[in-house]
This record gives sequence, C-alpha cells and structure tokens, in this order.
Amino acid sequence: MTKLTVHHIPVCPFSQRLEILLALKGLRSEVDFQVVDITRPRSEDLLRKTRGTTALPVLETADGHIIKESLVILQYLEDIYPEPAVAQHDPYRRAVENMLTRMEGEFAMQGYTFVMNQDPARRDALRDGILKLYAKLNDFLVEHAPTGPFLFEQFGWAEAVFTPLFMRFWFLDYYEDFALPQDEQYARVRAWRDACLAHPAAAQVTAEQIVKLYYDYAKGAGNGALLAGRQRSSFTFDSDWRTRPWPPKDKYHHSATDEELGL
Amino acid sequence: MTKLTVHHIPVCPFSQRLEILLALKGLRSEVDFQVVDITRPRSEDLLRKTRGTTALPVLETADGHIIKESLVILQYLEDIYPEPAVAQHDPYRRAVENMLTRMEGEFAMQGYTFVMNQDPARRDALRDGILKLYAKLNDFLVEHAPTGPFLFEQFGWAEAVFTPLFMRFWFLDYYEDFALPQDEQYARVRAWRDACLAHPAAAQVTAEQIVKLYYDYAKGAGNGALLAGRQRSSFTFDSDWRTRPWPPKDKYHHSATDEELGL
Repeated sequence: MTKLTVHHIPVCPFSQRLEILLALKGLRSEVDFQVVDITRPRSEDLLRKTRGTTALPVLETADGHIIKESLVILQYLEDIYPEPAVAQHDPYRRAVENMLTRMEGEFAMQGYTFVMNQDPARRDALRDGILKLYAKLNDFLVEHAPTGPFLFEQFGWAEAVFTPLFMRFWFLDYYEDFALPQDEQYARVRAWRDACLAHPAAAQVTAEQIVKLYYDYAKGAGNGALLAGRQRSSFTFDSDWRTRPWPPKDKYHHSATDEELGL
Repeated sequence: MTKLTVHHIPVCPFSQRLEILLALKGLRSEVDFQVVDITRPRSEDLLRKTRGTTALPVLETADGHIIKESLVILQYLEDIYPEPAVAQHDPYRRAVENMLTRMEGEFAMQGYTFVMNQDPARRDALRDGILKLYAKLNDFLVEHAPTGPFLFEQFGWAEAVFTPLFMRFWFLDYYEDFALPQDEQYARVRAWRDACLAHPAAAQVTAEQIVKLYYDYAKGAGNGALLAGRQRSSFTFDSDWRTRPWPPKDKYHHSATDEELGL
C-alpha cells in the first residue's frame, strides 16, 4: 500500500497533534511526513493539490485526495487506524472529550495573539485573557476529571490536541515572563498540563527549539514572514537551531539581527 | 427509559440542528425539548446544571449529565441513535463532511455580524465578507460534489449543520436586501442552499417567524436583550409572532416601538 503523506511544518503544533496520535498507536512510520519550508514560496505542485490554500498540515491519501484541518485529519487517522483507539468510544465520554476539544481554538488564538503582541500597554489584558482560558480549562477538568491527571484513564484525544499548544506556549514563558500562578484555581489544569508535557508520545519538540524558532512570532511576524532589517526568518532551515544562541528575551525594546540570532 | 432533555430557544439555529438530525432519524419524540425564554433571567436550576454558562442548547442525559455545544450534542445523538446514520461512515467521506462542517463557525459569525451591524458605512464590507464565504462554500462543493444537490447522495450531516444558518440568513434578505448574486461563482452553493431549504426534515421554522423574532438582532440587540425605549423583546413569548405585523425593513433609519411590532 502506498503511504499516506502529510505536508507539514515540523515545529507546527497542528502537525504535532498528528504525530502524537500516530505515536500513541505505534504507527508513526505509516505516514510519510514531507517538510514544507515556510520561509520560501509554496511549490506549485502543493498549491495545485490544496487548490490554493496555504494552511498546513494537509494530508494526501494514497489515491491523491487532500484532507485539510488538523482535527479533521486527526479523526481520519483515528478512523483508518482504529486500534489502539485514542478517542473514547462511549458516546457520553466522547462528548466530554469533544467539549474539551472545542476549547482549543480560542486557547490557541489567545496564546498566539499574546506572543505576537508588540504593544506593552496590552500585555496585562492579554495575560488576563489567557489566564481566563486556563481557569475555564481548570473548571472543566474539576467537573469531569477531578482526580486526573488526564481527562480519562490515559493520555488520549484531548491530550493529543492540547499538548502541542502547551508546548508552544513555552514562548510565553520566555518572551512574556508568563507563568501559571500557583493558585488553587489553576491547580487542576496545571496538573493536566504537566502530565501532558511529560508524556513520552509528545517528545517531538523541545522548549529550546520552540523559543528559537518562534523568535519572529515574538516580534509580530508569523508564518515565515520576514521582519524589517532581516535577511532570514527564525524558521529557516539554513541554520540548525541547535547551534544558535538563545534569542534576547526582551521583545518590546530590542530587535535582534540575523547575526545575534545565529541565522 | 427516562427521556433525554434539550433546553433550548425554539428558533435558535444551533438547536434546530438537533431537531433536523432527529427528524432524519424519525426520533424527534425521543427527546423532550424544554423551552427557555431568553427574555427572562435563566432559572437557578438550569444555571446550576450548566455551571453558570448561559449558551444554549444544552442536552441533559437521563442520569443528569450535561452536554454543551450543538455540534457535540449532534455527535452524541448520532452515536446513541446510530440508525439510520446521518453522518458518513467511510473515513474519507466523513473527513470531507468534517471539512465542510469546519466552515460553519465563520459563516455563522459573519451572518450575525452583518445583521447586527448598525453602521451604514460598514454594509458593503459585510456584504463582501459573506459573499466571500459563499464563494468558499461554492468552491468546496464544486470540488467534492460537483453534481449535487447535496454533499453526498442525501441530505446529511453537513446539511443538518448549515440549513439552520441558511434559514436564519433570511434576516439578511429582509433587513439588508441581501441576495446571493445570480453568478456562476455561486451557482453550486445556491443549488445546495435551495435543496437544503426545501427539505422536509428542516421545516421547523419559517421566513416570517425568523424576520419577526430577529427584529431586535437587526437593531443590534442579541440574546433577548432589551433595546432603548422598548418594554418587550422581539423574542418574547407573550405575543404570538403569527399575529404580529411584519416589522419595518429599514433598520438604519428607524427604530420600531413595541406597538409597531405588535408586541
């Protein structure tokens, strides 16, 4: 059988979801992950396949069908590789999982808006915004999974969806000095997050990698866009992130050069 | 077996999705629909059940569990009443259906933003915005279901999700003189919409009912909120919409009184 292909950005959280799901099933090698360099224009070939859209990841089936949207792809992989199941089978448990999953969009949006913000006057409001969403996750988990650490017995669907976001939000720790307060109102979501981050199926990226690659996001430039005065994106493949120095933390008063970033 | 209960606003599109799904299965009587009057404060009992959230519909299971979010409830009903299936079973077909379903959020938001707009200077941009989304739906259907009228052989999951929105958008026809242009670029989505609107499983509401009940939305007040100078919401149950006159169409230069609206 010809393999499935996923076109992706290796450090993208929405792609990492797929990798985590496959890792949980022991099927990572069933899918051919093709790396897309977002600092260069998309290939004509890929644009033709996606009918002009540039969002990633996209999955290409063996017979050339294209499936877009990480949660749709995740469900497709769960359906074609049903064992071991990652999603819950019981209808009520699946509904609980789906309710939690519905919170991911706003959570992702808020975290990315926060890291990309360039206005110091908005920092407090953005910090409050993300804390409110952490509190909402906490409340949900207290209601549906008070003992934890996961929503159900094991790291499952909701964890595959949220863990890549928890990992990306390492950029908030670094560039925004963000830390989840040690309050009781975040205790349950903190335990969930910590268990998610520690799970062996989610070891695709590291904090160092996230902080270095997302420097340009912290300066307001997403998706491989080039900042003023720069020749290279922090997402470039031309320089290995492992050999780069850690970027300057002060995103509001300093703009690092390619040289400072080791690009 | 104790019945399932759905707490809902009868004319709410997100609740109509559930009614359509149940109608397609011939199971409408399996669920007890409890009407919530959004022009009055929520009951303490319901607030306790929902842990303080006010969004509707919510489903209450026989053993008192609460499920929120229309698409999550829809999946739950599909799972507990699997026959006849409304969702596709084949993984790729289900993915296609899910991709189309993913477009509903932005579509709903754009239509509601348009009807609630009070600034005449923004009308053109809002009209362009909704047309862009119709064009996107058109493109999707041309790719995945060129012959139609439905996404697959029959009115199914995607139709249950979108039809209530097509029906609500009758408020755009009335209050914004909106009409989908007779262009080729909307021909496929027009055929889909028309087939959806004509389906017998989706006969829960009428254009007259939508236009009369959503008058306050057209004046910028959602969710049963009371407009200045008014004593009653257009969502009130105290006056039957059937006996009310049609509201004035000019939302930008005139604010109707309770008397004019027959409230």
